[in-house]
Amino acid sequence: MKAAIIHGGFDVRVEEVPDPVLLEPTDAVVRVLMSCICGSDLWPYRSTGPRRNGPARIGHEFLGVVQEVGADVATMRPGDVVIAPFMWSDGTCPHCLAGIQTSCLHGGGWGEDRVDGGQGEAVRVPQADGTLVVAPVAPDDERLPALLTLSDVMGTGHHAALAAGVGPGSTVAVVGDGAVGLCGVLAARRLGAERIILLGRHDSRVAVARGFGATDVVPERGDDAVARVMELTEGLGVPHVLECVGMQSSWDTAVAIARPGGTVGYVGVPNGMESGLPLRTMFGNNIAVRGGVAPVRSYLPALMADVLDGTIDPSPVFDLELPLDQVPDGYAAMHERRAIKVLLRPGR
Amino acid sequence: MKAAIIHGGFDVRVEEVPDPVLLEPTDAVVRVLMSCICGSDLWPYRSTGPRRNGPARIGHEFLGVVQEVGADVATMRPGDVVIAPFMWSDGTCPHCLAGIQTSCLHGGGWGEDRVDGGQGEAVRVPQADGTLVVAPVAPDDERLPALLTLSDVMGTGHHAALAAGVGPGSTVAVVGDGAVGLCGVLAARRLGAERIILLGRHDSRVAVARGFGATDVVPERGDDAVARVMELTEGLGVPHVLECVGMQSSWDTAVAIARPGGTVGYVGVPNGMESGLPLRTMFGNNIAVRGGVAPVRSYLPALMADVLDGTIDPSPVFDLELPLDQVPDGYAAMHERRAIKVLLRPGR
Repeated sequence: MKAAIIHGGFDVRVEEVPDPVLLEPTDAVVRVLMSCICGSDLWPYRSTGPRRNGPARIGHEFLGVVQEVGADVATMRPGDVVIAPFMWSDGTCPHCLAGIQTSCLHGGGWGEDRVDGGQGEAVRVPQADGTLVVAPVAPDDERLPALLTLSDVMGTGHHAALAAGVGPGSTVAVVGDGAVGLCGVLAARRLGAERIILLGRHDSRVAVARGFGATDVVPERGDDAVARVMELTEGLGVPHVLECVGMQSSWDTAVAIARPGGTVGYVGVPNGMESGLPLRTMFGNNIAVRGGVAPVRSYLPALMADVLDGTIDPSPVFDLELPLDQVPDGYAAMHERRAIKVLLRPGR
Repeated sequence: MKAAIIHGGFDVRVEEVPDPVLLEPTDAVVRVLMSCICGSDLWPYRSTGPRRNGPARIGHEFLGVVQEVGADVATMRPGDVVIAPFMWSDGTCPHCLAGIQTSCLHGGGWGEDRVDGGQGEAVRVPQADGTLVVAPVAPDDERLPALLTLSDVMGTGHHAALAAGVGPGSTVAVVGDGAVGLCGVLAARRLGAERIILLGRHDSRVAVARGFGATDVVPERGDDAVARVMELTEGLGVPHVLECVGMQSSWDTAVAIARPGGTVGYVGVPNGMESGLPLRTMFGNNIAVRGGVAPVRSYLPALMADVLDGTIDPSPVFDLELPLDQVPDGYAAMHERRAIKVLLRPGR
């Protein structure tokens, strides 16, 4: 079968790899219907120098059809359509039971150690019962792209909104117009936010954000963005801020626009945070920060129900669809910001 | 009248100053019954080099008897005993109405600009209605030291516990055995915590913490302290951590012992945070941080009721009482850790 392999910076190739087989009685083998490329896949893609552990499978967002299950797998059977969260987990340890499956004592990431990546024709899924969620749809359902966003970006945007305390009537600001920021807008609207200010400047992304419920758009950056948001909020700031980037400048902006007593929900993977969080501003203004790597497995059932009944449709974050064979083009398109998010279908 | 004046590092003197008078119709003049020295007073006390703005009044925790009120003051009259929070505020701006009086649009700190410090025989209080809380007690009530803690340390410990999400049955860790950490223990118990782990090592402070409700004491520091707390929590960590110090090492410990999905309530004034918050650990483990400069004005009525009916008695944090004349000895005693917290009474 074919799968994407990362060899180094700017070097992702589609290669022939062995078909996956069951290794543990808790495994499932899933034939991939769709996978996609994540903003966080760009970090290793953009890295320079040789990879520490050599070439590796990559990709952590996928859905597919169960092909085979181990003897201990109880919640799915061959033929079921399943959605994979971006980390796998046993579902039974204390952290999983507390809803923080990303901290599972017996779980991990895709494409690490002996675990497959998701950008391929098939995947061995460890801890299938704790990891996968069965979707009651056929393999050709037109809602599959929307369901695929629950692997990561939509659940991550929801985590940011939930962490920021968004609720009915909230005023919210979303820092970042990547796929996660856009899903943060949609999640905030789903939670009842009344006013949603997007800090972003790319026309195609802003258009998606408007469709998702953004009521105001601030294209400025840095101090100008802060001044503009303050203007929009009568000088008081925003009670609920979603940090969906993870860089120093976005964090500084997120904290600066937060209203005293407000909360920054953060999901951007920290990257190049040279001077750290602006702790003195946080301290003086009583700004809470809450979030982290999103336990999307927790959110999958509720978000799936809302996708299936049409309450939300996050699929517009996919603006480029490619066959798996063209995965190198997909990475290049996201790196060059020609695409918000790339959907991959196995095939020629 | 006499008041404490800070002239520079390790140089606090008691000097003759003009009696305070009403300057605004919203002012009150308060004769001080008791004031005290705060851990945060030690930062300017320990600083070296000349003071930027010259000698200044100091002290931000006091209670006293109203002597005179301006024409617009409605909630108190001469003779009333009043408690002052460690910042003054108008009580009517949007931030005050939201309970974040420390961010009052028209408020400020004591001993700044033309505002008196609290370590003196009398104080002009701006925005008296928004700032002061009348205590229904006589000027010789024996509960005055307990009420004085509501000016800062008890309200600050309560802020940490509340921010950390402490509730009935909680397991809590308190990092720091200063007066605020000790009050954090008492606040956690008041909120119903079942298990309270104090990270501290000074015998006299640990004894107070035990009296306040600490169930476990971890005297180790750094990695050893983290290992010990993990041992005490079956390797899972603590859901509610109170950071009551504000230094790099205490923050690193607080985040390291937090359970995935847990919250660090923070009230330690950030000081010497060379490498910032451990954001990658926070991100990976979904650790929230919430807190800041405590809006003790919000908490004063409820905490006062609990002091008056005997539910809590934070007064054991005062282990040295001195007349105002000996304020230099009080600073030295706290600097040298001979005293947890020094109570000052005007007089010889």
